[in-house]
Formats: sequence, C-alpha cells, structure tokens
Amino acid sequence: MAEVLKTYLKDRCKVVDKALNGFLPETRIRPVTVHEAMRYSIFAGGKRLRPILSLAAAEACGGDTENTLAPAAAVECIHTYSLIHDDLPCMDDDDLRRGQPTSHIKYGEGVAVLAGDALLTIAFEILAQTPPTKRYDVGAYVSELATASGSRHLIGGQILDLEGEGSDIQLTPTQLKYIHESKTAALLTSSIRLGGMSANATPQRLEALTSYGKSLGLAFQIIDDILDVTQTSEKLGKSAGKDEATDKSTYPALFGLEKSRKEAARLTKKAHDALKLFGKQGQRLHEILDYLLDRDY
Amino acid sequence: MAEVLKTYLKDRCKVVDKALNGFLPETRIRPVTVHEAMRYSIFAGGKRLRPILSLAAAEACGGDTENTLAPAAAVECIHTYSLIHDDLPCMDDDDLRRGQPTSHIKYGEGVAVLAGDALLTIAFEILAQTPPTKRYDVGAYVSELATASGSRHLIGGQILDLEGEGSDIQLTPTQLKYIHESKTAALLTSSIRLGGMSANATPQRLEALTSYGKSLGLAFQIIDDILDVTQTSEKLGKSAGKDEATDKSTYPALFGLEKSRKEAARLTKKAHDALKLFGKQGQRLHEILDYLLDRDY
Repeated sequence: MAEVLKTYLKDRCKVVDKALNGFLPETRIRPVTVHEAMRYSIFAGGKRLRPILSLAAAEACGGDTENTLAPAAAVECIHTYSLIHDDLPCMDDDDLRRGQPTSHIKYGEGVAVLAGDALLTIAFEILAQTPPTKRYDVGAYVSELATASGSRHLIGGQILDLEGEGSDIQLTPTQLKYIHESKTAALLTSSIRLGGMSANATPQRLEALTSYGKSLGLAFQIIDDILDVTQTSEKLGKSAGKDEATDKSTYPALFGLEKSRKEAARLTKKAHDALKLFGKQGQRLHEILDYLLDRDY
Repeated sequence: MAEVLKTYLKDRCKVVDKALNGFLPETRIRPVTVHEAMRYSIFAGGKRLRPILSLAAAEACGGDTENTLAPAAAVECIHTYSLIHDDLPCMDDDDLRRGQPTSHIKYGEGVAVLAGDALLTIAFEILAQTPPTKRYDVGAYVSELATASGSRHLIGGQILDLEGEGSDIQLTPTQLKYIHESKTAALLTSSIRLGGMSANATPQRLEALTSYGKSLGLAFQIIDDILDVTQTSEKLGKSAGKDEATDKSTYPALFGLEKSRKEAARLTKKAHDALKLFGKQGQRLHEILDYLLDRDY
C-alpha cells in the first residue's frame, strides 16, 4: 500500500474513533453494563472501512469532514450491531471476532442482544445530528440508512444467509449475488452515499458514488469469501473455513477460486470507472479501491 | 367504559392498523420470512395504546390525524420489536404473548432476533416520513424516539430488568421506579410527545404532555404488576405470576397490593392535573387515563 494512503487511513481511523468516543454514552452512565458492551464491540479493532468511505466520499464532493462525522459514526454503529447479532448462538454462533471474544461470550446473550439493539438505535440518534445541506435534510439521511439496513437489504441478507445455512440446497448464482448485495454492498454503498449527501453531492455525483459503492461492496464480499477459504484462523482472527464447514454457499464454492478472483478484479475496475467524473477529487476513492483489491487474496 | 370512548378507541385502532399495513412491506416482498414475522407480531392483537396516545395528543394540540400516522406507526414498531426481543429465551423466555406463540416459538430464534431488528429499523424509516412543522423537523422527531428507546431508557430498563432477574437482592424502591420509568414510561411519554410535536405543540403544551405521559406510564406499569399478581393466565394471555416466580421485584412485592393501587390512583390524578391547560381539547386524554385506571385491578 502506498505510504500516503496508509497515513490517510490511519489518520481517518483516529478521526472516526474520536467521533465515536464522543457520540457514545460514557461507561459511567447507567446502566453501566449496556454502555460497556456497546463500547467493547465498537472499539474491538475494526478497520473503520465504512466510516472512512463516508469521509472520502464527502471529500470527493468537496465537503468538510466535520459535517460527515455523524453519518460516519452512524454507519459504524449499524455495522457493529449487525456483527454482534450475527455472532449470536442462534445465528452464526461465533465465539471469536477480530481475535477477541464476541459480545455474547463476554457479556452473555441477553446483554449482547440489547447492546446490538442499543447500537442500532443510537445510529439514528447520531445520524439526526448531521447538518442538513441544500439538497438533503435529516429525513433524507434517515431514509437512506434505514432502507439500507432494513428488512429488504442488510437484515434481508442475513435472513437468507440464515435460511441457507445447513441446508443441502446449493444457492444459484443469482441468489448468492442477492445475499452479497444485501448483506455487504447495501451498507457500504449507503456509507458512501451518506458521505456524499452530507457534502451536498449533485444527483449525478450521488449516482456515480452509488455505482462505485455497489461494485466495491460486491468485490469486497467476494474477497472475504476467498480469504475465508485460503487463510488460517490465526491470520483472520475468526474461524477460517467456517463458511465451508456449515455448507454455506460462497463465491469460491459456486465458481471456483480463479473465477472468483477475476470477478473481484472486474468489479474493482467497474468501480474505478464510476469515479471518472470526479477527476482528481476522486483520487482517494481510487486508492481505497486499490487497497481493498490488494488484500492478499 | 363510556360508549363514546369505546367507539373512539375502536376507530383509532382501525386507523392505526391501516397505517401500519401501509407502512410495512407486504409479505410477498422477499425475503418473505422476515416480512411475515414482522407482520405476525405487529398484527398479534395489540391494544395500540401508544399510537392511540400519539393521535390523541395531536388532537389535543389541534393537529390533523394524517400528520401523526407516521409517528403513531413508528412507536408501535418500537414497542413490538421490544416485546419480540424481551420474549427471547435469553431474556424473559416467554412462549406466549397475547395468547399466541411468541415470535421465536413460531419462527425460531434467529428469525425473531432479525424481525425485531427490522421493526426497530423501519420505525425510523417510517418516522422520517412525518411532515415537519414550524417548531419541529425530522431531526427532532428522530432524536426524540431514539433517545426514548435507547440505552438510557427503554433498552436501559430491560438491561436492569435482566440483571435483577433470578438475583436474590431485592430492588430498592428507587431502583424499581427507575426500571419502570425506563421500560414503560419513556416510550409512552415519547409516543405522546411525538403526537404533540407532529401537531406543532407549543413548548408549554409539550411540557404538559410530558408530565401527563410520565405519570400515566408509571401508573400503567404499576397496574400491570398488580394484574400479574391478581389475574389468571387465561385472562391475561400470558403466564401470570411469572414475575413473582422468577423473583423479579414488582410494586406489589415491594409495597403490597393496597399501597400499589393507591400509588396508581395518585399518579393518575397527577396526570389529569397536567392536562389543565388543554381545557376541553384534552377531554380524550382524560378519558384514556380513566380507561387505563378502570382496568380491573
């Protein structure tokens, strides 16, 4: 990775962490348990990809970082809640996440359910603090995030994932693409769109960001699938090969590794192309894409 | 109950049901399972107390029902999600709700968690459709509902409830009051406030509605506690005496039945008093209070 991007990501990560720290209730506020559990999962070493994409999209539209802190923090809260609930015994039943005990292992299932609920709820409380622009008001921000994380997209993907698990029926490519679009691409796209919206993006630019986000999101999920097959638990910080072990359909399972790698590369190119109208302002978004593709898959 | 109020409640119930039916995705929309589960719990025979209070509060402020349908539906979605998650095996572990199998009994735990998440999420999607007024914008509506249903209030109360369950330590009256305020009064108060806000309530009227809501909410919870001790499962449609069996602290357990009844009556009077500045426009809110107190406790 280019040194300049490395510095950028590190710096943006700090900006996001500081914002999250400011938005989340302190642990001394009662009930202490829920606030501890919320912070435990939020500060568990995530890469902050979604909020960084919000900030980079806002920059590409000439926006001020300050105005994008709220949507950036909000999308990270949504992402983290979905991981907490996804890890529950009644869902994926994962004990480890980023090498650390998952929320229900650390705090018990009841608290984990409620900590997830609380992060989902506070996401909207935080989002409502985003300054409106000429083109977008708080209603537009809230509709955007609620749709992307609702029953037709993020949650919808998890339902299909849950229904497919342990089932002997192989998913069709169309079904798998639908799950990936819902589970991963929808929130990534929304993170990027919210960044653009908070920077008063023109409809044309918002459209371009949407196309960039969708291609990036699909590529990102395919790469995750590939890494799950090719890497060890130690390196990933979660149980590798788990998807395969539970008969979950993945890109490599359906198409083989080589074809999956090519598809990830094709989508990445498509995402680059979508950025054309940003010219030099889109530089950072190009770099982030390359960084994502350069993950060792 | 007066015949006129009976007709009013029945009519408002229909208005709320119609709005909910319009706001929730149809079951033919995929993934079908999550939309079925959302509708199963939403249309499981709830009394619609919270949305009716939103509508009545808006009427008291001279508002139009049409402008309050979104917040009314939103608070019912929040209430229903909290019941679904509260009934989970890792929480209260209830098999029956209003005489029907709870969501996780009907659909399995994973789907129940996700259906709850989806109702929580759509609440904000719906709320964002509330028309802004001169005094309140969508940001104000979203902050209001997110705060009331967040970690410091609704979810906070459930955490404390969960922590208290099975514990030998008797709660203090202050702790119990805090749980009741968080678990029940916060969302009831917010339902009433959102009704007022959607009708452009003056700050003074919003303050009065808040006071009315808090007293009503506490009285309502105390009466629920009393009914749980005095009534049978059949009549309540849930497992009566359950709170006592699991050592959960309740008003009757701490203060005895007689004192609990007096406290409910005192709070109800306080709520009536808060309505003074509405004059005749507050008539419906007075009637609803009487109706709540008139429950056979």
